[in-house]
Amino acid sequence: MDHAQLVDDLAARAAAASGRVAELSTDVKNAALRLVAGRLEEGTDALLEANRRDLDAARERGLEGPMLERLALDPQRIRAMAEGLRDVAALPDPVGEIESMRTRPSGLRVGRMRIPLGVILVIYESRPNVTADVGGLCLKSGNAIVLRGGSEAIHSNTAIAGVFRGALEECGITPDALQLVPRTDREIVDLLLDCEDQIDLVVPRGGEGLIRRVAARSRIPVIKHYKGVCHVYIDEHAEPKMARDIAVNSKCQRVSVCNSAETLLIHGAVAPTVGVEVLSALAAAGVELRGCERTRQVFPQALEASESDWSEEYLDMIMAVRVVDSMDQAVDHIRRYGSDHTETIVTQDISRGREFLRRVNSSSVMVNASTRFADGFEYGLGAEIGISTSKMHWFGPMGLEGLTSQKFIVLGDGTLRE
Amino acid sequence: MDHAQLVDDLAARAAAASGRVAELSTDVKNAALRLVAGRLEEGTDALLEANRRDLDAARERGLEGPMLERLALDPQRIRAMAEGLRDVAALPDPVGEIESMRTRPSGLRVGRMRIPLGVILVIYESRPNVTADVGGLCLKSGNAIVLRGGSEAIHSNTAIAGVFRGALEECGITPDALQLVPRTDREIVDLLLDCEDQIDLVVPRGGEGLIRRVAARSRIPVIKHYKGVCHVYIDEHAEPKMARDIAVNSKCQRVSVCNSAETLLIHGAVAPTVGVEVLSALAAAGVELRGCERTRQVFPQALEASESDWSEEYLDMIMAVRVVDSMDQAVDHIRRYGSDHTETIVTQDISRGREFLRRVNSSSVMVNASTRFADGFEYGLGAEIGISTSKMHWFGPMGLEGLTSQKFIVLGDGTLRE
Repeated sequence: MDHAQLVDDLAARAAAASGRVAELSTDVKNAALRLVAGRLEEGTDALLEANRRDLDAARERGLEGPMLERLALDPQRIRAMAEGLRDVAALPDPVGEIESMRTRPSGLRVGRMRIPLGVILVIYESRPNVTADVGGLCLKSGNAIVLRGGSEAIHSNTAIAGVFRGALEECGITPDALQLVPRTDREIVDLLLDCEDQIDLVVPRGGEGLIRRVAARSRIPVIKHYKGVCHVYIDEHAEPKMARDIAVNSKCQRVSVCNSAETLLIHGAVAPTVGVEVLSALAAAGVELRGCERTRQVFPQALEASESDWSEEYLDMIMAVRVVDSMDQAVDHIRRYGSDHTETIVTQDISRGREFLRRVNSSSVMVNASTRFADGFEYGLGAEIGISTSKMHWFGPMGLEGLTSQKFIVLGDGTLRE
Repeated sequence: MDHAQLVDDLAARAAAASGRVAELSTDVKNAALRLVAGRLEEGTDALLEANRRDLDAARERGLEGPMLERLALDPQRIRAMAEGLRDVAALPDPVGEIESMRTRPSGLRVGRMRIPLGVILVIYESRPNVTADVGGLCLKSGNAIVLRGGSEAIHSNTAIAGVFRGALEECGITPDALQLVPRTDREIVDLLLDCEDQIDLVVPRGGEGLIRRVAARSRIPVIKHYKGVCHVYIDEHAEPKMARDIAVNSKCQRVSVCNSAETLLIHGAVAPTVGVEVLSALAAAGVELRGCERTRQVFPQALEASESDWSEEYLDMIMAVRVVDSMDQAVDHIRRYGSDHTETIVTQDISRGREFLRRVNSSSVMVNASTRFADGFEYGLGAEIGISTSKMHWFGPMGLEGLTSQKFIVLGDGTLRE
């Protein structure tokens, strides 16, 4: 089969399966998720064996460190995958939920009912656990899924997808509800991104390069975030210890992820006091500080920031620092240089907190909390299929609800239009 | 200024304006909408004069009938525009609405707040009232708007947009919140569709050709529906008179619009009885019927339907008719040939009605009501900027809520991630 035939066949199967998955009852979906979880745990040895083949090949190609670490499975990670599926089974089923039925002057009752989107294509790199995680979210939300993992994880992904599909079949669900693309040639991705009649949504998960490539090529809507340039704003009414803790936690708790903070904004009135305390704590934690001129006046140890620092996603122990004169300036800075991901204000003044919440239109806006909380688990979405920093369809961490849409439902009694 | 400069300038102004419009209070927006309404009524003579220039030019170019009718303004239509704006002023403001704040195990309170999308580009033909209608919806939902009307209505649109912008300025709102593209060259549309960093959403309103052209070209998300192939399904438990009335009303009440019915499905058990009654009523109303073989067995006057009739949007006094054996067959037919617009079942059996509501995933699904009700006014959205038959972002008639998104808001108390 050539690439075009392979993609045609895959997309047609997914589209056909989506109609059936959409109609599954909550009980059947939950039973299937729990069965997949059990079968993954029982199949630990085989999964580890498949993973070993990927790891061997990766080492041969010279991969090391975090890349290898992301690829590796162990019994604990397999158990975590299974637990994740059981967690999703325990979440409420969004499909069929009815919202706000209202009676109209015509006598009609009008409301909206949640429905699945259809077919979701997930394109991802390295981590084989994604195969089960996103598979579970799509099944629970009544969608069919097409998975295209990276070549480095092909054996692990094939093994996990095989267990998933086997368990679906045991439950009487078509295994085409979850399909893994069996080849990893890039041409196949391009062909999939043309299937706008069969595939409803694309979720690329990986580096900015992968995401930009997918977004530029796709005729299908893409859920994406390119990067996270998250801000901590220390307001003039910030409590000093809280300011220190939130800045350090937002920056340092895990530097390599998109919801870690990259820029610190400090209100000028407290720059010499609270500001210096916060900067000292960051420096003591090992953070390289790159400040504006006013930052360096109060904290000379800071290096000089250049214009490009304001939009940099360091993903490292580096932080840009700017002193601002007002909430207005803080909001303007975030609008101009931010990535619409996550921003937090530290303040004891409730009205300032509310103003920040209202005026900053990033996907997560926080008061007195660490930016590190911006994810689907912490928000109670159960899990996340991705994060969207574009306002269309969904904004922020996206779980089951983001994988659905709403149709209008209308109840009449022979109601006619005059 | 060449086209590229014109578009750059326009898009940059819109993006700058969107930040300010997003922050307007409900009172200011409502006052502005009411002022625009008053100024349009006061300016009736000037608007009619501008419209006369468009009509003269259109007649010279040989336009006639419905085309000319759509283009024409009169004092009553101007009053209707003004009333439409006052209606939008009276609707609740979605911006700032907070949904479902929940406390998480971390102690954080997490919810979602409605925010504007940013900049909306509306591309439309003929009807100059669209200028005020969509302008009002975008202002109320806190969005900036770029309007690109057809060349045939350029004088009318310029006059209406001028009044709108003047009233905005009187209220201290930047007139860049509503910009009309001053030239109608098609190249300008192409350039606008490239402005993905400044424009957040495109709404094309017009024929299928226009919509397909925009969707194929745009890098910006598009709200679209290509056509409405709406179905009336007469279930075996349909009440005969209701079946007749709904079929005739859905088909004939206004044939030229997307929510009129094009296909009638009849359950085989009642084809010789209720089915024949319904077909007779349609024929008596002047509808040309094109039936499957079984239809023609019970109603020989029907012409023979060909395969292409099942997906045809006639927009005329013609209806395709098929006899089916079951709900399954009806649902399959709608999935295969439908356009995801609007479908209705006629039945006295509540469980059948619910099954239809649940299984048919079109943007509007009805029980015992005419398909003609599928629009924003009838659903209580106040007005509609368009109809979406794609499930992403919004599905069905789209009003103020569809012009917004939701950001996550998070309230902590110095909450840190461990």
